Amino acid sequence: MRKIPAPLSEFDLIAQLFAPMAGEGALGLLDDAALLKPSPGTDLVLTKDALVEGVHFFPDDPPASIARKALRVNLSDLAAKGAVPKGFLLALGRGARQDDAWLAAFAAGLAEDSRAYAVPLLGGDTVKTGQAFFSITALGEVAAGRMVMRQGGEVGDFLYVSGTIGDGALGLRLRLDSSADWVKRLQPEHRAYLDDRYLHPQPRVALAPALLAHARGAMDISDGLVGDGDKLAARLGRRFDVDAVPLSPAVRAAIALEPSLLDVALTGGDDYEILAAIPPENAVAFEERALRSGVPVTKIGALSPIDSGAEWRTRDGLIRDFVCRSYRHF
Amino acid sequence: MRKIPAPLSEFDLIAQLFAPMAGEGALGLLDDAALLKPSPGTDLVLTKDALVEGVHFFPDDPPASIARKALRVNLSDLAAKGAVPKGFLLALGRGARQDDAWLAAFAAGLAEDSRAYAVPLLGGDTVKTGQAFFSITALGEVAAGRMVMRQGGEVGDFLYVSGTIGDGALGLRLRLDSSADWVKRLQPEHRAYLDDRYLHPQPRVALAPALLAHARGAMDISDGLVGDGDKLAARLGRRFDVDAVPLSPAVRAAIALEPSLLDVALTGGDDYEILAAIPPENAVAFEERALRSGVPVTKIGALSPIDSGAEWRTRDGLIRDFVCRSYRHF
Repeated sequence: MRKIPAPLSEFDLIAQLFAPMAGEGALGLLDDAALLKPSPGTDLVLTKDALVEGVHFFPDDPPASIARKALRVNLSDLAAKGAVPKGFLLALGRGARQDDAWLAAFAAGLAEDSRAYAVPLLGGDTVKTGQAFFSITALGEVAAGRMVMRQGGEVGDFLYVSGTIGDGALGLRLRLDSSADWVKRLQPEHRAYLDDRYLHPQPRVALAPALLAHARGAMDISDGLVGDGDKLAARLGRRFDVDAVPLSPAVRAAIALEPSLLDVALTGGDDYEILAAIPPENAVAFEERALRSGVPVTKIGALSPIDSGAEWRTRDGLIRDFVCRSYRHF
Repeated sequence: MRKIPAPLSEFDLIAQLFAPMAGEGALGLLDDAALLKPSPGTDLVLTKDALVEGVHFFPDDPPASIARKALRVNLSDLAAKGAVPKGFLLALGRGARQDDAWLAAFAAGLAEDSRAYAVPLLGGDTVKTGQAFFSITALGEVAAGRMVMRQGGEVGDFLYVSGTIGDGALGLRLRLDSSADWVKRLQPEHRAYLDDRYLHPQPRVALAPALLAHARGAMDISDGLVGDGDKLAARLGRRFDVDAVPLSPAVRAAIALEPSLLDVALTGGDDYEILAAIPPENAVAFEERALRSGVPVTKIGALSPIDSGAEWRTRDGLIRDFVCRSYRHF
C-alpha cells in the first residue's frame, strides 16, 4: 500500500483517499455539490443508512469491513426496490480511533466495493466527532413508475426470501457470547462463515431485475425476518412456514447445539436479504430468473387477508410466537 | 404543543415527528427507499453536510436552531449551484442528551424550515450514538448542463459576495470568549444579531436564479472568505479589496472595539454567503436581479492571471496576509 504521510488534513484526506473512487459527477470532490444526470425515463431511488461505532460495528472490526458494510446495507435497500445503483455520498464522522492509517484502510475497502458494485462516490462531508459514524446516501435508478414498493402485494401472493436467514444475527451472537458453550463447540469453518456474514453482508443487487420483472412488493430484511415480515404489504395478513425458512449449514449446526438460537436467527437482524411478494402466476419465472442471477430464493409463505394476522406455523402444526419480533434501535 | 408519550420507539419517532414533513416521494417514510421523479430536462444537484454536537453546534443550543442550521447549510450549497431544492434525507444520530422532548423540538424546527423553503423530507435513518450528529443530504434540480460550477470563472470576472461577512464567526466568538472585554462592551442588539446569525444561517436560495442567469462560477462560503476565496476558479489568481468586503453594523462595532476581529471575520467561517464570478458584461444585470430577489450583493474583487496569486489589498495600498486562512475541520 502507498505510504500516507500523517496527519492528513481534510483536503489531503479527500484528495488522496476518496477522490480515486469518485465518479464523473463528483467533480473531483472539489465543488459544493455533485451532479447527477438522470437517465431519461427513470425515477430516482434514494436511501440513507448510517452506521455508528459500538452500535452497528465493533470498534476493532477491520476498517475495510466497516466501509464495505456501510455501503452494502444501502445497496441492499436499492436492490429491494429493483433499482440499479448509480452513486453514493458519504458523511464520515472521524472519531478518536480513526487515525490516518485507519482511514486509509477504510477508504481501500470502500474503493474495492465501489468498483465491485460499479457505484462511484459522488460527494460527502468529513467531520470530527468522538464516536465514529458513517452515513451513506445511495442513489439508484429504476424505470419510471416501476419502483418495487414495500406496500405492494395482494392476498395470495407467495412470500419469497433470498439467501439464508440468521447468519448475520448468529455472527453477531458469536462475538457477544464468545464464551458460550455452543460457540466453543461450533466447528471453526461454521464460526468463520457466520463471522464473515455478519461483517460482510451480500446486497442482492443481482436480484433487482427479477424483482422488477416479477415482484408486486419487496423489502430488505435488516431488523429480523419476523419483525420485518410484518411490514411488507402491512395492510394484509400473512402466513409463514417456519420450517421453510432457508438456513445455512452453520446456522443449522448452531441450532442443533443450542435450540434457542432459532429465535435469534428469525428475529436477530443483519440479514440484508430480500423478502418479496410474488404473484403465484409469476412464481416459476421469478425462481428461474433468480437462479440465473445467481441468487437463491425460497418460498416461505403467502399473503393472506388482514384478519388472519401474521402467523408462523411449523410443519407439525404448531403456531410459533416470538417475544421480541425484531431488533430495536433504541 | 401536542403531548408526546415517552419514550418513543424508532417507529413512533418517525411516525409522530418526521412523517408530517415528508414529501410524496417519501412514501410515508415506510419504505426502504424514497422515490424522486426528476423533472424532464434537469440535472440533479446533490450535497451532504453533517453537524456534530460539540463541534458544529453547542450541546445547549436550541434543538430547533440546530435542526434549521443542519438543513440550511445544505440549502446554501444548492443555492450556490443555481439549483432549486427538491428534498432532503436525514440521518439522525440520537445521543445521550436527545430525549423525546429534545427530538420533538428538533423536528418542529426542521418542519418549519421544510415548509419555509418548500423542501420536503424524503427519507433517512435514526440511530443511537453518544455524541449526537445530524447528516443531511439535500437534492436540487437545475436546467440540464447549467449547474454553476465552483471551477467556473475567467480572468477579469468580477468577484461578488452576498450579504455580510463575519457575522457567524463573530457570533461563535461571542459564545467562546464571553468574558472578553469587547463582548461586554458590545451593544446588546449587536450581540443578539451576531448570535442569531451564528445560530440561523440564511441560505441564499433566492439568489439561485440570478447565479444561474449571470454567474460563470460560484460557491458557498462556509469555512471563511479568505480560505474559501482561494477555491473559486482555483486555476486562476484573484485580487480582493479588503475594504470592500461587506460588514454588518454589528461586526463593524466589534472591530472598532477589538481590531483583531477583522481577521476573525474574514477567515472564521459560518458565513453561508455566496461568492460568485460574474463576467463584467453581466455585472449590472446580476446586481439588478439580486436586488429584485432581496439578496444584497457586493463587488469585492476580480479574477486575475494565475501568477498574481491571491492578493488582499486595502484601499491605502497595503497587502494583507493571513496566518490562518480558514477554519480547519481537523
